[in-house]
Amino acid sequence: MDEHVLETHPAWLAPGAFRALGRRRVRVSGDGPLADTVRDEVAWACARFGGSVSADGQPADLVLAISGRSEQADDGFLLSRDGEVTTVLADGPSGLLHGLFEVVRRGEAAFGPGPVAERHEPAWQRRMADHWDNIDVHPVMGQVERGYAGGSIFWRDGRLRADLSRVRAYARLLAACGINAIAINNVNVHATEARLLTERRGEVAAIAAAFRGYGVRVHLSVNFAAPMLLGDLPTADPLDETVRRWWARTTQRMVEVVPDFGGYLVKADSEGQPGPFTYGRSHTDGANMLAEALAPYGAVVHWRAFVYDHRQDWRDRRTDRARAAHDHFAPLDGGFRDNVVLQVKHGPMDFQIREPFSPVLAAMPATRLAVEVQATQEYTGQQKHVCYLAPMWSRVLGEAGRWVSELAVVANVGDDPFWTGHPLAQANLYAAGRLAWNPGADPVAVLDEWIGLTFPGATDGLRRTLHALMDDSCLTYEQYTAPLGAGFMVRPGHHYGPDVDGYEYTPWGTYHFADRDGVGVDRTRATGTGFTGQYPRPWSDRYESPDTCPDELLLFFHHVPYGHVLHSGSTVIQHIYDTHFAGAERVAAMRDAWRETTGLLDPAVHDRVTELLGEQVRSAEEWRDQINTYFFRKSGVPDLKGRRIH
Amino acid sequence: MDEHVLETHPAWLAPGAFRALGRRRVRVSGDGPLADTVRDEVAWACARFGGSVSADGQPADLVLAISGRSEQADDGFLLSRDGEVTTVLADGPSGLLHGLFEVVRRGEAAFGPGPVAERHEPAWQRRMADHWDNIDVHPVMGQVERGYAGGSIFWRDGRLRADLSRVRAYARLLAACGINAIAINNVNVHATEARLLTERRGEVAAIAAAFRGYGVRVHLSVNFAAPMLLGDLPTADPLDETVRRWWARTTQRMVEVVPDFGGYLVKADSEGQPGPFTYGRSHTDGANMLAEALAPYGAVVHWRAFVYDHRQDWRDRRTDRARAAHDHFAPLDGGFRDNVVLQVKHGPMDFQIREPFSPVLAAMPATRLAVEVQATQEYTGQQKHVCYLAPMWSRVLGEAGRWVSELAVVANVGDDPFWTGHPLAQANLYAAGRLAWNPGADPVAVLDEWIGLTFPGATDGLRRTLHALMDDSCLTYEQYTAPLGAGFMVRPGHHYGPDVDGYEYTPWGTYHFADRDGVGVDRTRATGTGFTGQYPRPWSDRYESPDTCPDELLLFFHHVPYGHVLHSGSTVIQHIYDTHFAGAERVAAMRDAWRETTGLLDPAVHDRVTELLGEQVRSAEEWRDQINTYFFRKSGVPDLKGRRIH
Repeated sequence: MDEHVLETHPAWLAPGAFRALGRRRVRVSGDGPLADTVRDEVAWACARFGGSVSADGQPADLVLAISGRSEQADDGFLLSRDGEVTTVLADGPSGLLHGLFEVVRRGEAAFGPGPVAERHEPAWQRRMADHWDNIDVHPVMGQVERGYAGGSIFWRDGRLRADLSRVRAYARLLAACGINAIAINNVNVHATEARLLTERRGEVAAIAAAFRGYGVRVHLSVNFAAPMLLGDLPTADPLDETVRRWWARTTQRMVEVVPDFGGYLVKADSEGQPGPFTYGRSHTDGANMLAEALAPYGAVVHWRAFVYDHRQDWRDRRTDRARAAHDHFAPLDGGFRDNVVLQVKHGPMDFQIREPFSPVLAAMPATRLAVEVQATQEYTGQQKHVCYLAPMWSRVLGEAGRWVSELAVVANVGDDPFWTGHPLAQANLYAAGRLAWNPGADPVAVLDEWIGLTFPGATDGLRRTLHALMDDSCLTYEQYTAPLGAGFMVRPGHHYGPDVDGYEYTPWGTYHFADRDGVGVDRTRATGTGFTGQYPRPWSDRYESPDTCPDELLLFFHHVPYGHVLHSGSTVIQHIYDTHFAGAERVAAMRDAWRETTGLLDPAVHDRVTELLGEQVRSAEEWRDQINTYFFRKSGVPDLKGRRIH
Repeated sequence: MDEHVLETHPAWLAPGAFRALGRRRVRVSGDGPLADTVRDEVAWACARFGGSVSADGQPADLVLAISGRSEQADDGFLLSRDGEVTTVLADGPSGLLHGLFEVVRRGEAAFGPGPVAERHEPAWQRRMADHWDNIDVHPVMGQVERGYAGGSIFWRDGRLRADLSRVRAYARLLAACGINAIAINNVNVHATEARLLTERRGEVAAIAAAFRGYGVRVHLSVNFAAPMLLGDLPTADPLDETVRRWWARTTQRMVEVVPDFGGYLVKADSEGQPGPFTYGRSHTDGANMLAEALAPYGAVVHWRAFVYDHRQDWRDRRTDRARAAHDHFAPLDGGFRDNVVLQVKHGPMDFQIREPFSPVLAAMPATRLAVEVQATQEYTGQQKHVCYLAPMWSRVLGEAGRWVSELAVVANVGDDPFWTGHPLAQANLYAAGRLAWNPGADPVAVLDEWIGLTFPGATDGLRRTLHALMDDSCLTYEQYTAPLGAGFMVRPGHHYGPDVDGYEYTPWGTYHFADRDGVGVDRTRATGTGFTGQYPRPWSDRYESPDTCPDELLLFFHHVPYGHVLHSGSTVIQHIYDTHFAGAERVAAMRDAWRETTGLLDPAVHDRVTELLGEQVRSAEEWRDQINTYFFRKSGVPDLKGRRIH
């Protein structure tokens, strides 16, 4: 596998991470492609580090075997230590793979005094990465929508890449963090990409083949109007019999070339994408029609709940975008087929640095739900800023994970040599996979794992600095950007950098209503849009009153005067000043701390991070000054500490 | 010429405008291409309307002849009426052409009792249209930068259009309004367009040939770094001998294929374009070097004075973009060669609906100056809004025209069937030509001429409605957009529609500094940036004090409280509310008035204008609501009339 290493950064599978395993005598039992993959991994590691592959009956330090406990491929495994032998006993072939990577993660510890027997299995069976890749390059958006790491790893110059070795390397990375499904193309399905469903299905098959060896199933984003766009039908009405037959036949053809085809991902009736509303049908009608076509193959439809009016009138304060998904979907609970997964963004708006969890997650007990998180840092610094998002996701999963049965992460990967542009942004994708496997995992422990795999042999100093930079980086980002849950305040279109009023008078439904007296959106039942009423208790009560609403969500739920006193004891306006000065200072401290790590890691990684920290410092100062100036000009309240506001 | 009429709108040369002339017996004397053009025009009109072309010695109602008074082709002519005969006695061939169009403009009046002898000659010898056309299509900007009327009339699909008949029709329109020079390409000269200077000069020659018959000389925008881009030289230093030789040789080659080549237009050291600053040289060095290369051919360099720091820090209130052109150029007065024309935007900023005239115009008595105006409605409604700009230009020319020796108008023409997108926007280009000929002309009289030529046989009702829509339309636009000279407040990038803070925190130097107490930019000598000191008296004093500063420029020169009382008796904040409600109401009234003209003109024109008035109403209401809401939220001052502010 060294050939990938030469071209691109190895991410969290640095060769050195295999040292402990590669020094041992290792025996792998089992048949089939996944067992072969495990055997290849072991052979490669042993060749590199001086260990050996043991045949049946020969002595071994590590045994990887399948128990046969499960009929189907199953992810679980038992990790045990008996005397001098470490054993992974997997439920099925994929468990063998996950067991292997668990041993890699542990390093030497896997071969020291250890647990007698430790059962591992994922919380959720499907753990998915969604790519927003296009085949064509959009002149403004680029090839990967909201991508900040170069072009697509799948397509180039309008065609499938001839060399898919990077895709195989990616499959390996995904498997190593626990991800076992991938949607390969953008949910906004344009004309060219729509054809992946039909005449370009061979490309889907080729990509699926590259992922198969690591147990990752391929899904496809489809355009709801495909029967008209591609099938020459006069309608895409989901209740029309010819439409249903078209989808059945088209799906069958896909499965003929992709036998383990995962299913469809659909953004319907959302931001201009077509959907069942055009035909007077419901989301249930639309999703169930696709689910019916997929059911014979054990495949599923992921139906996104991101539906709202993106042509709202800013003058109309009654319409509340935060309400939209719940208003649309909660009444449909119980109406979806078994193989429909309703995919819900973790917050009610759109991946802001601070939102409450989406009330849809708590409102649909009779529906399979996937929670969607965004590793690609659209609103969180675009992989120019260090922003480790796992603590935010972990908080959401802690509150709402119990109602969820899948996690889907919008990937942050492109053809950049570091995969994710910013080398430290790799941790977000890794953590998403690990949280999908174990939603209760501690994000800082996950980060520590990632450090060990990415920087094997890291000094304590490097490890400490990485934690100092990353552990609380999403809190730091929050400090210097939109305050107290207000959200947005970014430049429209590209979404990078500050523009407090950028979305204030637009049709996008994202407002803060700042005036000379106060700021925030009244979403209470008593006097506002009633959004708080979409939550069950205790949240519905907690969010309803400024007295019980957490400080960090105050402006999400309430319009308050600048002099409103927070639980912290500070006023809203002083909090804005304080956090913005503090946030920018913390970024400067991050840059200074990073300087101290020179020589402790690969210079190419060090240089890239150094360069990007420079940009983060500049950008954080710009955020600080624009936000502070904006609110000073509006409120007229001077900073208690007399710092410079322009 | 009917073939053009079929494809595109005839603009201000509607066939019917030639009726009076075409019914007469007309004699044309003179030789050469322009005389031939006049003869062709007459022959065509007489064939259409039943008149005749008289040979020498035959009786005639109209005689067009050259006096030979001038050695060179000259634009002047004597129009006289003697008994039953109208005579145009031209100084030279181009006077013959302009005399013809004067007769056309007068219609039947040219053949009634008239002046014994009336001398016509232009105030300025060169009257120029600048095209910002590109060969390549920019994915966002389109093909014509800041163009709102489709693609370029010169290039298509990366090549010169095979059929240049539309260019010839355009030459005819230009001649008919008095324009006699054209720069054919964008002042931002990108890689493809740079080559028009060298290997693509054949295209310049073909375009020049299409314009020649109507006496319009072709100029070319060039990239100051051309010796490096195109000539493989290691420098573009204007004092380097090899560079000077390169320009001399390149210019010579251009003149070989375009014998009447007009010269170069240069945007140097401006918004990222290269210039002499790179080599530690001055604008004088740069312009004079090009002028030297052009001098042997009677050609000129137009050197734009639009130089400012577009990477300004919004936090820095001392730097004032308004000062930049004067700071850069006034000290250079007297240093430019005779054939350098310094081209100065009419205002110190950038074509806003309200600016004072540029102080550069008053500061360079020893320099030839062209005043640049913008017919293309970048900041004035983008040819979706009716905005007749001649009154604004006329005001500038009244104040500063005495120091000027040319007018250059940025054209508003593209391959749209109506030439200018909005059919009524044609009047702006027409008026620019007429004001360049006679800066003292009354803009409403010019509009009346344009109506007569564009809608021959218009009823009094149609004529009245057109005046009602257009005469004061730029005041109406001002009413519903940025108030009191504040400027900008448009969406960054495309510049259409409101965004009060859109440029407030950007590097572009265009700020309003609105806070909860007041708004405006202090440009006084006493307490501000000192910009008022760039003006001579009386303006320097008039603008310095809010007591004498005209209301409409108050926020351009002063930062005042919302309660500041204007000369009009209203407060600033109430003025904002009143004008924005009034402006939107006036647009609604325009729409209603236009409805009454159904059936009075070409339905295609009527429909296009109707559709665009719908958009103007929508946009004016959006401006009204955003501006009023923004200032209400900031000031907290209620509208005295209790109207709805959101």
